[in-house]
Amino acid sequence: MAKELKDLTKRSENYSQWYNDLVVKADLAEQAAVRGCMVIKPYGYAIWEKMQRTLDQMFKETGVQNAYFPLLIPKSFLCREAEHVEGFAKECAVVTHYRLKNDPEGSGVIVDPDARLEEELIVRPTSETIIWNTYKNWIHSYRDLPLLINQWANVMRWEMRTRMFLRTSEFLWQEGHCAHATAEESEQRTIQMINLYAEFAEKYMAMPVIIGVKSANERFAGAVNTYTIEAMMQDGKALQSGTSHNLGQNFAKAFDVTFVNKDNKPEYVWANSWGVSTRLMGALIMSHSDDNGLVLPPHLAPIQVVIVPIYKTDEQRDKISEVINPIVDKFRAAGISVKYDDADNRRPGFKFADYELKGVPVRLAIGPRDIENGTVEIMRRDTLEKSEGQLEGIVTHVEKLLEDIQENIYRKALEHRAEMTRTVETYDEFKTEIEKGGFILAHWDGTPETEEKIKNETKATIRCIPLDGDTTPGVCMVTGRPSARRVIFARSY
Amino acid sequence: MAKELKDLTKRSENYSQWYNDLVVKADLAEQAAVRGCMVIKPYGYAIWEKMQRTLDQMFKETGVQNAYFPLLIPKSFLCREAEHVEGFAKECAVVTHYRLKNDPEGSGVIVDPDARLEEELIVRPTSETIIWNTYKNWIHSYRDLPLLINQWANVMRWEMRTRMFLRTSEFLWQEGHCAHATAEESEQRTIQMINLYAEFAEKYMAMPVIIGVKSANERFAGAVNTYTIEAMMQDGKALQSGTSHNLGQNFAKAFDVTFVNKDNKPEYVWANSWGVSTRLMGALIMSHSDDNGLVLPPHLAPIQVVIVPIYKTDEQRDKISEVINPIVDKFRAAGISVKYDDADNRRPGFKFADYELKGVPVRLAIGPRDIENGTVEIMRRDTLEKSEGQLEGIVTHVEKLLEDIQENIYRKALEHRAEMTRTVETYDEFKTEIEKGGFILAHWDGTPETEEKIKNETKATIRCIPLDGDTTPGVCMVTGRPSARRVIFARSY
Repeated sequence: MAKELKDLTKRSENYSQWYNDLVVKADLAEQAAVRGCMVIKPYGYAIWEKMQRTLDQMFKETGVQNAYFPLLIPKSFLCREAEHVEGFAKECAVVTHYRLKNDPEGSGVIVDPDARLEEELIVRPTSETIIWNTYKNWIHSYRDLPLLINQWANVMRWEMRTRMFLRTSEFLWQEGHCAHATAEESEQRTIQMINLYAEFAEKYMAMPVIIGVKSANERFAGAVNTYTIEAMMQDGKALQSGTSHNLGQNFAKAFDVTFVNKDNKPEYVWANSWGVSTRLMGALIMSHSDDNGLVLPPHLAPIQVVIVPIYKTDEQRDKISEVINPIVDKFRAAGISVKYDDADNRRPGFKFADYELKGVPVRLAIGPRDIENGTVEIMRRDTLEKSEGQLEGIVTHVEKLLEDIQENIYRKALEHRAEMTRTVETYDEFKTEIEKGGFILAHWDGTPETEEKIKNETKATIRCIPLDGDTTPGVCMVTGRPSARRVIFARSY
Repeated sequence: MAKELKDLTKRSENYSQWYNDLVVKADLAEQAAVRGCMVIKPYGYAIWEKMQRTLDQMFKETGVQNAYFPLLIPKSFLCREAEHVEGFAKECAVVTHYRLKNDPEGSGVIVDPDARLEEELIVRPTSETIIWNTYKNWIHSYRDLPLLINQWANVMRWEMRTRMFLRTSEFLWQEGHCAHATAEESEQRTIQMINLYAEFAEKYMAMPVIIGVKSANERFAGAVNTYTIEAMMQDGKALQSGTSHNLGQNFAKAFDVTFVNKDNKPEYVWANSWGVSTRLMGALIMSHSDDNGLVLPPHLAPIQVVIVPIYKTDEQRDKISEVINPIVDKFRAAGISVKYDDADNRRPGFKFADYELKGVPVRLAIGPRDIENGTVEIMRRDTLEKSEGQLEGIVTHVEKLLEDIQENIYRKALEHRAEMTRTVETYDEFKTEIEKGGFILAHWDGTPETEEKIKNETKATIRCIPLDGDTTPGVCMVTGRPSARRVIFARSY
């Protein structure tokens, strides 16, 4: 068995270490030489590309177009919306100079003090400000609306504690920024996009999510309302996986963006923004993977099927290849991404362990006797079960198996979430239950003060007020004051 | 006719103004609020996306994988390769702080002086340094080679004079960074990639290019050798459209990246890097467009065919739509991107002018009489010629027409280049000819001094030493010293 695999920490020993090990050993990413930043390695990036292509297509089907806005934002723009700057000022990279020069007193290179910018520029932590400053020139009449724009970009937030994919100083994401003529239409789009994210999470990532509204404390800086999708990781912690913000007229007012409505009267534009990031990679890893490595959903796996020949002589290998090559073509024709790994410098056992570590959903192994018998050994990564199959019709069989794996890991994640979701009535009960992890459904009086108290005492936050589910009123577990409905508490990433 | 169209400056009046007008009026891009940066608008970005997807596919077919490296580069990394820092230090954005705070003496927000970085970070102008610092950990043995990696990213060079797409402070690009076990293999890859760029330019952009080697003066900072593709714009100026650099062992030595070769001996790794950027958008615009607006090659046009119904009554419109809708489906099934513009708020004349401005290759117009007769008016954007066609078989007809347009604009560009390319013998002759624009083939003694003198006196530079073409030796037009072969001089963007 491969050395890399043996070194993987077990989840039961140290979940956090298991995650870090897995990210590195499965060749997804590594810490960069720059504080808090990561290098996304080819295998990790290939998964991200699949996510990007799928989401991009889904966005476009709703009428969204891509564009690109500048990386650097003038400091004064960030300051226009009071809550926004409050939310982002403490963690931003600031460009102050535009030139280096040879150190007159030494041999090195220094920042040229004569090349100081008149106004500092901020590496975008998010782009509402620069985009709404641009929209001012694009929007004049109701005929210019709605404006449905997305950008794929890198952003930077100077986080103090970072973890690969989950929280890094620089990350990759998409940010959609829509402008509408009415509050209703903007709210509809805000909800449409959180629903789209939920669909993506469930259908492609095989990750069940709860759609809900954030409490005021957890709202995006500058938003009227933030919708979220919350997923539960294997350790029972919540992971916020995507957000969609109804920005009301806040940014239109900050950047003076008005339009002439159908009644020929000027009105501020209604806005929303929505995004998902490389954080989804962390969510994907922690939703399904096990002590043997990654478990990837077939819909996002860069390699869906790997075929490993088992042979002793070159003649045997040639015979196997002769049979397998046309099958590889058939897999490709069926739109299944397949790798035939006949590399000579690694033994089958090493290959098996490596593809398990990398989460390839289906492995086919084939030896000389299989060729004689028309059989093949099939291993499914999610359950690690092996079975014997027929070479005849193998493509159709694997096609079904991939769908079966996709459904199975979704169901497993859903069952896990159900097991780890409890309802509590009292704060004492809450304090006991929260230690066990998972989602806790409890009554809350709706005030930021109570939420803050719970957070300080238990490290749990309100993940969301679910859009669906039980809406029976009750009394707050902490204050005894009226509660409109139960909300979801959890510790989170 | 649409107001926008009438406002477009004519090329003969002011070529430079025509370009700027066209970029803005065709909705490709606009100046951003940040000095030297641009906003790429949805229509412009859609063209860039087509370029990206095509190139990405071409790269992957040669075994290249995508990855992502950090935006910010520690100053000390940039300084490791002497020529490299010399080339980039004068034009880089420097991050010095990581936090803003409320101004204790006022109402605004200031850079927090306590949040000064120990080491300044540079917004990447190119990524050789950070990537080779990473490769150090990835490469140990010849078995780890070749390493063929590309990233799609934004980069920043603090240019003093900027022009949209051609030279902007921030731009989008791809940068490939390959590592090899031998000098020969690295050189082969360097040439393979410049050939790939040439193929892309010619087949997709319909833009003929000359492949050649840069003189020492024009070489990439840190390269042993730079290959380039040079295109001629309509005004006779050259535009460097893509480069591929053989970096020798320079970066491997600077970052101490060695591998154990097949003879079990340590050796420095051989490197190359290659890139194209949103500059290609400028090249595309200036290669084919005319006084009516953009002319887009069908292989890169976001909308290849637009269909405009001509009607007076709603009944007429409905009748046209009934006939056209199934044809739209057939276009889509044939992989042709089509837009049926039956919007009611713009008159056909306005639509015609707008789609001409936006360079849509084929326009179909159809009225009630066409429906009766089974005919359609066909306009091809490249020649502005109109013809009558049959609705029966229109998809096949347009499919051929698109290929015909693609070939025609390539041929036109090729003829233009041939007309504007001259051979001169004396420096006097050179000085006269260079004023007329175009490529001048002349003998040069191979020294940087002579090239510098010619540049200072005529503003012309050596665009490249072509890989193909006349290799007869001669004497330098300036110094009379021996010349190995003619090189290409031009004024350039």
